[in-house]
Amino acid sequence: MTVKDIFKNLDGVEKILIKNGGENAIDRSFFYLSQVNGGLFEGSSIIADRDHIQMFVYELEEQIARSTDHEVHVAKSSAQMNDMIQRELRGQTKIGVNKDSLTVNMFESVRKTTGNAELVDVSRNIAEARMIKDETEIRKLREAARISSEIYDASMNHLKEGMTETELSAYMVYLMMSNGASEPSFSTIVCFGSNASEPHHSPGNRKLKSGDFVLTDYGAAFERYHADTTRTSVFGRATEKQKEIYSIVFDAQKSSMNMIKQGVNGRDVNAKSYEIIDSSPYKGMLMHGVGHGIGLDVHDHPAFGGYDFDLKKDMAVTVEPGIYIPGYGGVRIEDDVLVKNDGFELLTQKPPKDLIEVS
Amino acid sequence: MTVKDIFKNLDGVEKILIKNGGENAIDRSFFYLSQVNGGLFEGSSIIADRDHIQMFVYELEEQIARSTDHEVHVAKSSAQMNDMIQRELRGQTKIGVNKDSLTVNMFESVRKTTGNAELVDVSRNIAEARMIKDETEIRKLREAARISSEIYDASMNHLKEGMTETELSAYMVYLMMSNGASEPSFSTIVCFGSNASEPHHSPGNRKLKSGDFVLTDYGAAFERYHADTTRTSVFGRATEKQKEIYSIVFDAQKSSMNMIKQGVNGRDVNAKSYEIIDSSPYKGMLMHGVGHGIGLDVHDHPAFGGYDFDLKKDMAVTVEPGIYIPGYGGVRIEDDVLVKNDGFELLTQKPPKDLIEVS
Repeated sequence: MTVKDIFKNLDGVEKILIKNGGENAIDRSFFYLSQVNGGLFEGSSIIADRDHIQMFVYELEEQIARSTDHEVHVAKSSAQMNDMIQRELRGQTKIGVNKDSLTVNMFESVRKTTGNAELVDVSRNIAEARMIKDETEIRKLREAARISSEIYDASMNHLKEGMTETELSAYMVYLMMSNGASEPSFSTIVCFGSNASEPHHSPGNRKLKSGDFVLTDYGAAFERYHADTTRTSVFGRATEKQKEIYSIVFDAQKSSMNMIKQGVNGRDVNAKSYEIIDSSPYKGMLMHGVGHGIGLDVHDHPAFGGYDFDLKKDMAVTVEPGIYIPGYGGVRIEDDVLVKNDGFELLTQKPPKDLIEVS
Repeated sequence: MTVKDIFKNLDGVEKILIKNGGENAIDRSFFYLSQVNGGLFEGSSIIADRDHIQMFVYELEEQIARSTDHEVHVAKSSAQMNDMIQRELRGQTKIGVNKDSLTVNMFESVRKTTGNAELVDVSRNIAEARMIKDETEIRKLREAARISSEIYDASMNHLKEGMTETELSAYMVYLMMSNGASEPSFSTIVCFGSNASEPHHSPGNRKLKSGDFVLTDYGAAFERYHADTTRTSVFGRATEKQKEIYSIVFDAQKSSMNMIKQGVNGRDVNAKSYEIIDSSPYKGMLMHGVGHGIGLDVHDHPAFGGYDFDLKKDMAVTVEPGIYIPGYGGVRIEDDVLVKNDGFELLTQKPPKDLIEVS
């Protein structure tokens, strides 16, 4: 990543202001530009120009900010923070801001600080830059995916009749964090039996029975970069129907994934899984996009769906079709891949070709 | 909670539209109004009027949405989602929206859907309503705090010379989730030794040595409600200086906490800890607000700082002064309390009066 990329096609914009909000208004671009490890940096800002980055932080994160190579300014109060930013931006007529992240009320407050300057939306520029991963980012993504993949077998070995979804979820998080994850990428999804029909099920007290689907959608965060993988197994012996569903989803996932390379249209990757599932006995039972970008956000740009975009080298995306049958259960298989000129690098481990029966 | 409270002083507003965004633009008000368990509901909306709540969701969360008592509408695409919302809001001249949560670009998209209607900011109304917890919310907060407090002893029993901050953090998350937490409230902070001087330190590979401070700032999430508690112990024998720092922080925390009751000014609660710490040998070494509201957000309204607000019955807040000495270490003590007419209910367990030496 070079900051210069973000300024492409931004005539007259010399400085970009990135303001990070509270826990529901985090701008990961703050962490993209600073690559700082640690800290929350609520209410902190970055001012970037083509050549360098300045961090404006509060005292409570001063030490962490100073661990980077960036110029660091420390405020004792929000009034002082605004003054410092105002001074730094004085004389600018156009200032870049991220309207995908600033809330309306944060935007109004930025407007007060920036006077008559025009606030230009640079969200698209930032998203474009963030989609293409550099070597450092790829290293972090590989590590997050490695940790996630490697704990799967131990998770399945932990299955016991009568255990709850929550117990398995707790154990998987423990395994990831014990193996180098800074935290789980997101709330680990564990579905037993018919709960596997809910793509966004939250683990609960349902107890594991023989013959249940065990669908786990989880991932490790490593230095703020994420993995997101889904595996579906069966506890005990699987029925023919369970095996059939798995093999259709496996086929869909493999077929979409095998299309991935620079220049392919994301819409076609999405359509391929739909084509396979909708021509099976389980027509209509996939009802979400078959994947999404992954990076500093778990659901990052781009998203596979019913619209056009070109895959580009060094994009990182997930591929995750599924079949969901209300009241019965479901199967999803999800992997993380890095787009290459003539194919892809699989970041997660190869998913099993046949439905695993955990005994 | 009754939806009616939110409509107070909103003349001419008959409907409020709450649109939930992606992982960095979550509007917890969506979960406040729906009280739905499970699901992410990215891109889902709620339309509330004084009498009832309608949920507009995508197919992938249909089953979870239908587990509530609310009227549920299911969209297959974002175009259909916008159509449904447009139809429901037709004829309204003023529509309430949450400008503390909507990003600028989401706001622009809502504006397209709502035509000429005026979009009135109801963020203040929502925040006011959310600050006062009802019985259901209090039950969830109590449970989150109980889980958090109860795992502390087991966490300390787990300390071993040479273990890393990350290992302890993983174990604490495991204990919380095994004891009923749906997830950690936030990335667990574990600081060994001099790292305790960074209020927002992220756990790393630092190894535990005898005589180290062990500062843990952590909490359990239970049905989307949060706990946030900090304890500081020493591994092995503590020095007189460590004991002194602890006892000053304990005094500050107790003194601020003991002021809490309906009608007291938050500024005074904040000032009390500063007064005690700034008249000790550690003057200037507290540099953050001494607490914050807690609920659906970890850092929720109100926040203790240098401004006025009245504490009210059934607000839930944390009290967390600390002393931070760069290069040496630090102590923070944090508890969660519920404001009462004539005092407070301590949600977390009483903090130890003397610095604990873990052997």
